[in-house]
Amino acid sequence: MDAGDSHEEEQRAVDAMYADDLASRSLGIVIEDVAPGQATARMRVTAAMVNGHAIVHGGYIFLLADTAFAFACNTRGPHVAGWAEIVFIQPAREGDELAAQASERVLVGGSGVYDVTVRRQGGEVVAEFRGQSRRLRERAE
Amino acid sequence: MDAGDSHEEEQRAVDAMYADDLASRSLGIVIEDVAPGQATARMRVTAAMVNGHAIVHGGYIFLLADTAFAFACNTRGPHVAGWAEIVFIQPAREGDELAAQASERVLVGGSGVYDVTVRRQGGEVVAEFRGQSRRLRERAE
Amino acid sequence: MDAGDSHEEEQRAVDAMYADDLASRSLGIVIEDVAPGQATARMRVTAAMVNGHAIVHGGYIFLLADTAFAFACNTRGPHVAGWAEIVFIQPAREGDELAAQASERVLVGGSGVYDVTVRRQGGEVVAEFRGQSRRLRERAE
Amino acid sequence: MDAGDSHEEEQRAVDAMYADDLASRSLGIVIEDVAPGQATARMRVTAAMVNGHAIVHGGYIFLLADTAFAFACNTRGPHVAGWAEIVFIQPAREGDELAAQASERVLVGGSGVYDVTVRRQGGEVVAEFRGQSRRLRERAE
Repeated sequence: MDAGDSHEEEQRAVDAMYADDLASRSLGIVIEDVAPGQATARMRVTAAMVNGHAIVHGGYIFLLADTAFAFACNTRGPHVAGWAEIVFIQPAREGDELAAQASERVLVGGSGVYDVTVRRQGGEVVAEFRGQSRRLRERAE
Repeated sequence: MDAGDSHEEEQRAVDAMYADDLASRSLGIVIEDVAPGQATARMRVTAAMVNGHAIVHGGYIFLLADTAFAFACNTRGPHVAGWAEIVFIQPAREGDELAAQASERVLVGGSGVYDVTVRRQGGEVVAEFRGQSRRLRERAE
Repeated sequence: MDAGDSHEEEQRAVDAMYADDLASRSLGIVIEDVAPGQATARMRVTAAMVNGHAIVHGGYIFLLADTAFAFACNTRGPHVAGWAEIVFIQPAREGDELAAQASERVLVGGSGVYDVTVRRQGGEVVAEFRGQSRRLRERAE
Repeated sequence: MDAGDSHEEEQRAVDAMYADDLASRSLGIVIEDVAPGQATARMRVTAAMVNGHAIVHGGYIFLLADTAFAFACNTRGPHVAGWAEIVFIQPAREGDELAAQASERVLVGGSGVYDVTVRRQGGEVVAEFRGQSRRLRERAE
């Protein structure tokens, strides 16, 4: 779907974005498999991400999914999240290796819908996330 | 709405929950104003929470709102989040003092709907969050 | 909050909108209590709205809530729904009188968040709806 | 993925469900392509479904998507919708032939997540819907 050149451009954009993205780096999130409309974010669950019920705080699962979403939608130029939702399917625990795989569902005008599935190391689904992107120039930020 | 005794019990439950909640403590989140079905979570935005567009990573805003939601719904006994959504209204930046105020909208059987508004120090709305809780025994965890 | 004149203007706008809105009229939906950012829509559940489980098809409950949302957000000028979600709390049945009460939660720039609670005649909550509006000129329609 | 026998059983379940589902029939909705976790619902937009902006009332688009979702999740036994959301991508108009294609994303325990894409006759996406199902016995109805 894409020539090598545009993949290189995407990779440079991703590298620059990640370099600036302290939020992702400080949690040890790694970005992989970036392609037009797609990205995967990986994170190992640390003790600092566990909540009072001994399972991972849902906020960190959202954060991982949101990161994959951000990298996927920014392959289309600068976008921000307008809205997002997450369904928690099964809990994750300390030491789990989580992978959040984002893919574009539809992109019309300046707005896209992206789905992100978060899985544990064995392939079990931890959460299903959906987010809507908006081209950055639409909001004065 | 409540006698002093039940407020004390709630406070003890909140203290225990917070003591166990490494995720919230490690981000410097403070819990206030806990009452039946209600809680407020406060957090100062650090450099580590900023994303590639120089605004706060949406995941941290979600995490703050989700924490307020968790404390609010656990005043009704042990609950977990089943599903949640967030609308990003205005961006937050490094140094901002964010407050996420959670209140119960409806609670029927073992499931409740909670609304959380996240505001900056001046009162401006940063995000609107809604989550659904489920009583813990319903899922084998 | 508003002088009589602006209420009259709103009422004229509502009357015109309702006259054009075959969808609402054909279901017998009645609009009441329109004020800036607010509206109530009422509907009696007919046999034609019942699904295979002998309870009201969730789509009609959404439709009622969405109508209240539309009238509420159009008190701010022409807007359309960008996104909406609904949580089904308790079932409704044939003959029930449903009331969907919409109120504005936040309105920033051209976009607003509205909450709609749908209740049965006795006050029990049937559903909680949330929708996001977008000023019409933003999309070429 | 399925032997002929189980497809026949599904078809009988679908026929019985549709026979009881006045809500879908009264709108002229047709159900097609039912398979485990999947279903398609088709509807022609009538004048009675148009709102004050001369575009289809979002509630009818939701209703169509919700019907496809209901038929898809009931291939797994009796389920009801717990929660649903819809993103409106492009408007539909009178005379349009809409198709809502539902597919199961994940099914764990008694709860599933289903995605439904609603398209116009030319294949353009009108809306993206996501719903969560819950096995009927979980709620006393």
